Amino acid sequence: MNTNTVKAFGTEAADADLEPMQIDRREITTKDVEIEILYCGVCHSDLHTARNDWGGSKYPSVPGHEIVGKVTRVGSDVTKFKTGDLAAVGCMVDSCQTCDNCKQDLEQFCLNGFTGTYNGKDKHSGKHTFGGYSEKIVVDEHFVLKVPENLDLAAVAPVLCAGITTWSPLRHWNVKEGSKVAVIGLGGLGHMALKLAHALGAEVTLFSRSAGKTEEAKSLGADSVIISTDADQMKTVQGKFDLIIDTVPYVHDLNPYIQTLHASGTLVLVGFLGNLEPMLNTAPLVLGRKSIAGSLIGGIAETQELLDFCGKHNIVSEIEIIKMQDINNAYERMLKSDVRYRFVIDMASLKN
Amino acid sequence: MNTNTVKAFGTEAADADLEPMQIDRREITTKDVEIEILYCGVCHSDLHTARNDWGGSKYPSVPGHEIVGKVTRVGSDVTKFKTGDLAAVGCMVDSCQTCDNCKQDLEQFCLNGFTGTYNGKDKHSGKHTFGGYSEKIVVDEHFVLKVPENLDLAAVAPVLCAGITTWSPLRHWNVKEGSKVAVIGLGGLGHMALKLAHALGAEVTLFSRSAGKTEEAKSLGADSVIISTDADQMKTVQGKFDLIIDTVPYVHDLNPYIQTLHASGTLVLVGFLGNLEPMLNTAPLVLGRKSIAGSLIGGIAETQELLDFCGKHNIVSEIEIIKMQDINNAYERMLKSDVRYRFVIDMASLKN
Ligand SMILES: [Zn+2]
Ligand SMILES: [Zn+2]
Ligand SMILES: [Zn+2]
Ligand SMILES: [Zn+2]
Repeated sequence: MNTNTVKAFGTEAADADLEPMQIDRREITTKDVEIEILYCGVCHSDLHTARNDWGGSKYPSVPGHEIVGKVTRVGSDVTKFKTGDLAAVGCMVDSCQTCDNCKQDLEQFCLNGFTGTYNGKDKHSGKHTFGGYSEKIVVDEHFVLKVPENLDLAAVAPVLCAGITTWSPLRHWNVKEGSKVAVIGLGGLGHMALKLAHALGAEVTLFSRSAGKTEEAKSLGADSVIISTDADQMKTVQGKFDLIIDTVPYVHDLNPYIQTLHASGTLVLVGFLGNLEPMLNTAPLVLGRKSIAGSLIGGIAETQELLDFCGKHNIVSEIEIIKMQDINNAYERMLKSDVRYRFVIDMASLKN
Repeated sequence: MNTNTVKAFGTEAADADLEPMQIDRREITTKDVEIEILYCGVCHSDLHTARNDWGGSKYPSVPGHEIVGKVTRVGSDVTKFKTGDLAAVGCMVDSCQTCDNCKQDLEQFCLNGFTGTYNGKDKHSGKHTFGGYSEKIVVDEHFVLKVPENLDLAAVAPVLCAGITTWSPLRHWNVKEGSKVAVIGLGGLGHMALKLAHALGAEVTLFSRSAGKTEEAKSLGADSVIISTDADQMKTVQGKFDLIIDTVPYVHDLNPYIQTLHASGTLVLVGFLGNLEPMLNTAPLVLGRKSIAGSLIGGIAETQELLDFCGKHNIVSEIEIIKMQDINNAYERMLKSDVRYRFVIDMASLKN
């Protein structure tokens, strides 16, 4: 396999800082698009993978799956893109494209396993994939998204993970004009959920543990804010919501939120993988036909739908732009939730 | 309020046997239907209410909410029924009929609380309601169902609770030709779930803990039986099911069953109210967009839809007919799961 060496930023070990390195990108195949990366969002998964928090990290590790840039070259069979086009890549760069789920545009549930943009098993090289903290990336055109020209390009980047992670459940559970939607947690995911649910015409509530976020949440699309630790406030929303998007990434008690679902309502977890503790009581589920569900990013067609929706409604993420060299400090700030609401790396800084 | 005294069978206390007693039924209002009860199914809820297992039981307690009979009188405004018609009553005899849920034919989720057929708060008398272990019952026509003429009347009775409890989730989660449905547990609910899912055209699997039920399950509509304690058999159905109807009435581990759901699949609890133990792991929910839900009986329109479906497909419950005087013994047998699959009381015996 012919390759091209490009600059990147990554880490050689779980306990080491990220630093400049060189990685190989494959020479484009007939179906590939080569993208010069202009901006890359910083997702919590980047940090967890770099530090092997979930196990299974492969080194050197080059994170980054909120990628936007410009097409520099295309393979001979590529039809969707030409040199100079804006382009984006999210959490997936490949899947079997033949299984039942792939055929239904649910590549995120590919029965043969999708290829993650980083730390995935690369079918071309046989090694693991490298993400967007790099100059360029080469991706099968099926997994490359078109980017509306009217949006702030840097602020589009988080749409590729934080955006689609909240958009997919909003769409799957059919949120529309007049739906009552609540969002738990106001971080990278939560702030996108507020914007998107609002733009879909829903009445949107933020559940927050702190009172200080009300004005901010309203500016992002919330109609109201409920302090989840205030029993009186929680009582005012009993039985209210059609859908709750729970972005909290650590273990927490779902039972009080279940009480705020309307009959047939669903609480969907998008941030927490692990054991539910304290125990979930099934009585409210049965007595109100309520559901607890999970949701994982979204399919490629759905991600394109989201980007088009963002273009139409002029929606982007709230971001703080950083240099590539600031990434280790940015990770430390993310761990303290000290970011509004997503770091995005200006990849021009990698050239320095 | 004018009343009529009728024979019934009930209990004066949680620790007393059921015995003959007299109760009052209201004189019919303009909207009421008076029904001579011919058969009444015996539900586990009857036993739990008679014995105050859930707390809140009111005495004297007259259970029974799987009621079929003949109309003996109708109020002047009644349009759906005339004297001599077959009629049925399930778990509800009243609701506000004005809230959002009632207006959507979801009386079981009435925001003002539906009136249970027994142990409910009777709006007419101000006292608690008495169920179907009695000669007659008087019910608002909205809560009275029509019974197809072609079915074995005694065997229709369990359709009113065991049937609708499994039908409602099959319909809500859109089971149709080719759907892959599993049922956990082969009792009163489970055997109806097999019949109904099969009649809807689904491919139906029974999860059972014992190998001896295979032939029986197949005769009831199962295409296959998986022994849930056999890890190798469980592996053969990983990722298979669109819907799992879990009829198990006691705490049990859901995690192995979640693994057998297809992407976007749902496990719906219809039998167990309580804390989920061991803890539910959310990872398979998120990674496969799977749901855990609950479901409670069904609305009145949906119950009528089910009875019509049963008439068309010639579906009834498998039953053992008992006399009213056998009820205390029947309860003991139910506690040992020694019933195939539902006891139905021949109410003619009450006249003895
Ligand atoms: Zn991410
Ligand atoms: Zn696939
Ligand atoms: Zn029942
Ligand atoms: Zn109501």
